[in-house]
Amino acid sequence: MKFDKKSLEDFARGAAFLGTGGGGDPYIGRLLAQQAIAEYGAPEIIDADSLDDDALILPIAMLGAPTVLAEKAACGDDIDLALKRLSEELGRKPDALIPIEIGGINSTLPIMAAARAGLPLVNADGMGRAFPEIQMVSFNVYGCSATPLAVVDEHMNSVIVRASSAQKAESLVRAIAVSMGMSVMISCYPLSGKQVKAYAVKNTLSLATGIGQAIADGRKTGSPIEALLGFLKTTEYYRHCKVLFDGKITDLRRETTRGFSIGHCIMTELNGSGREMSVEFQNENLVARIDGTVCAIVPDLICIVDRETAEPLPTEALKYGQRVKVIGASVPPIMRTPEALNVFGPQAFGINEPFTPIEEFK
Amino acid sequence: MKFDKKSLEDFARGAAFLGTGGGGDPYIGRLLAQQAIAEYGAPEIIDADSLDDDALILPIAMLGAPTVLAEKAACGDDIDLALKRLSEELGRKPDALIPIEIGGINSTLPIMAAARAGLPLVNADGMGRAFPEIQMVSFNVYGCSATPLAVVDEHMNSVIVRASSAQKAESLVRAIAVSMGMSVMISCYPLSGKQVKAYAVKNTLSLATGIGQAIADGRKTGSPIEALLGFLKTTEYYRHCKVLFDGKITDLRRETTRGFSIGHCIMTELNGSGREMSVEFQNENLVARIDGTVCAIVPDLICIVDRETAEPLPTEALKYGQRVKVIGASVPPIMRTPEALNVFGPQAFGINEPFTPIEEFK
Repeated sequence: MKFDKKSLEDFARGAAFLGTGGGGDPYIGRLLAQQAIAEYGAPEIIDADSLDDDALILPIAMLGAPTVLAEKAACGDDIDLALKRLSEELGRKPDALIPIEIGGINSTLPIMAAARAGLPLVNADGMGRAFPEIQMVSFNVYGCSATPLAVVDEHMNSVIVRASSAQKAESLVRAIAVSMGMSVMISCYPLSGKQVKAYAVKNTLSLATGIGQAIADGRKTGSPIEALLGFLKTTEYYRHCKVLFDGKITDLRRETTRGFSIGHCIMTELNGSGREMSVEFQNENLVARIDGTVCAIVPDLICIVDRETAEPLPTEALKYGQRVKVIGASVPPIMRTPEALNVFGPQAFGINEPFTPIEEFK
Repeated sequence: MKFDKKSLEDFARGAAFLGTGGGGDPYIGRLLAQQAIAEYGAPEIIDADSLDDDALILPIAMLGAPTVLAEKAACGDDIDLALKRLSEELGRKPDALIPIEIGGINSTLPIMAAARAGLPLVNADGMGRAFPEIQMVSFNVYGCSATPLAVVDEHMNSVIVRASSAQKAESLVRAIAVSMGMSVMISCYPLSGKQVKAYAVKNTLSLATGIGQAIADGRKTGSPIEALLGFLKTTEYYRHCKVLFDGKITDLRRETTRGFSIGHCIMTELNGSGREMSVEFQNENLVARIDGTVCAIVPDLICIVDRETAEPLPTEALKYGQRVKVIGASVPPIMRTPEALNVFGPQAFGINEPFTPIEEFK
C-alpha cells in the first residue's frame, strides 16, 4: 500500500470521521502529506505483524488545541527534530513510524514524517480514533511507557520529558505546550515491534481510506451517508453504527482553554419534533444526549457530518445554522476493555454516566 | 576554606542578607547543608581562578516560589538526579559545582550537592545576590547558554530543556515548575572553567560568610547593624551601603502567583515623621520608595532586617507590626553594566524608574 493524491484525499476524509471532531483540520494535514510525498516519495506502509519483535517504532504527533494546530502547521524541521531528539535520548534510530491516533492531522502528519525520514509507516495506531490526552492510548492501557518523550516548537526549542506515568507526562507536556503557544510537535511512547503487534489497533490506515472512499463513492449516487454506514458495517471495529440525529446547529460554545478546545454543540431536530441533541467535546466529541438522555458515549465514536455530503466536521468547523447528521459507531474491542475504560471511559472526562456500548442503546 | 557548623550559620545568615528577601528560608537550607556535611564530609571550596579553562562547572538550584520552596525542601535524590540527567545530556561529568545565586536556599543547596557528589564547590556565583528568573544571571548577560537544562521534581519526574534563549528557557521552566507543584530542582548553564573565570561574581561564598559573621559579632556588642555596615564598607562589591529606613510594617501584600511570591511591604517611620516606605518584590525586593520617591532600585540590594538583631528577613517571614530597618547596598560592577541592566535592570521587572546607583541618591 502506498498513498497517492486520490487515496490521500480519501484517507484524510476517513481520518476526519474517526477524529470525531478533534485532531485538527484534515485539509491542512492532507496538503502537508501530499507535499512531502511529492518531495520525498511516498513512504512504504507496512503491516504491524511484519515487524521484528525488537524493532523500534516511534509515534509522532502534534499536541495542543486543534483551533491552534490549524494555524501553526508543522514546518517539517520540527518533525525531524522531535524524532532526532528522541532517537538521541534512546541511543538508537527508529525502524518505522506509527500514528498515535487515526484522527485529523495526527493521522496525516506521520505520512509526512515517514516520507521525510525515508522510514516505513505502520498500518495501525494507538486508538482507532482520536483522543485529546497523552495517556489516552492503548499503549498506555497495556503498560508501554509514554516517556522518554520529545517536545519541539516551531522555533526549534526542545524538551525531553521523563515522567513516572503517562498521566504525569500529559500534565507536564500540556503546560509546556501552553507555554510554547498551544501547539507543539511530540514524539513519545517508544515501542518495540512486539508491543506494536500486541497493543496497536491494526489496519486503521486502510480502514480510514475505506471510510473516505465510501463517502466519495456514495456522493456519486447521492447517498453518501448510507454508503458510509454500509462500509462501516463491513468492518470489524466500527460495525455497530447508526444515525443518531438529523438536525441543525442552534447553539455552539467553543473555548480554547487549558490547552484544549472545550465546549458543546446543540442541534434541533429538522423534522419539527422539537427534540434537541447536545454534544459535549474536549477536542473530540465525548457524549451525545437527546433531550438530556445519553445515546452515545466515549470511547464510542460520535461524528458530526454534513447532512448532504457526509463531510466529517471537525469541532472548529461547526457553525450556527449548519444542517448536520450525527453518527454513532463502536470502537475496536481493545478500546472497550475495563482497563481501557479506566483510562478513557466517561469518568476520565468527568462525565457521570457510565459507558454503554452503542449497540445496547435502544 | 571548608564549611563547619559555625561558618555555615554565618554563611546562611549572610546569604539571606544577599538574598534581599528571596531565595527561600535560609534556616532550612542551612540544616540541609549541615546534614549533608555530617554524612558526606564538607566539600572543598575552590577559587574560580584555580579552574582549568576546559573544566565543566554545573550550577544547581531550586526554582519556584519561595513560599513553596520552604515546604518542599530538597530530598537529595532530586539533586543527584538533576546533575546526573544534565551530565548524561552533556556526555560528561562535572569537575565542580557553583551556586547560580548567593541568596537564600540556593546558596546552601550547592554545598549539600557538592558534599553528596564529592565535588569541589567554586567560591563564586552568577549574581552576587539573588534574582527570580533564569535569564537574570551574569552568565547569560555575557553570552553563556542557559541550556541544556535539567528539571527534576520530588517524584523524580525529569525534563531536559533546550531553548533558543535564556528568556525562553525561563518561560518553559516556569510553566514546568508550576505543573510540578511550584518548586523544582534545576541544573543549567553548563559552564567552562574559562567562562566561570570571566563572568562569575567571585569570592561570594567568603563574602556571605563575612557578612553573617559581622552580624553575629555585632550582636555581642549590641550594634549588629553598625557591624554589618562596617563590614560591607570593606568589601569591593557592597561598599556603597546605608540604612534607608527605620520603621514598622503597617501593610503587607504577598501572593504566590505565576510561580513567584509577588507583592509589596509598606512601613511607617518609627520616629513619628509619618513618612512611609514601600518595597515591591518579585521573590526578591526590587524597589524601595519613600513617600513615592525611589531611594534604592534593582539590581542594587534592598534588604529588610530585624531592627534589633539585624537578622535578614526573607519576604515570606515579613509580618504586620514588625520593627525593621531597610538597608540598601551596591552590587558588583559586573552586575551594573548596560548589558546587565538590560537583563535585570528595573525595566526587566516592569518598573518605570531608571536604575540609579545607590551611592548617587542623596
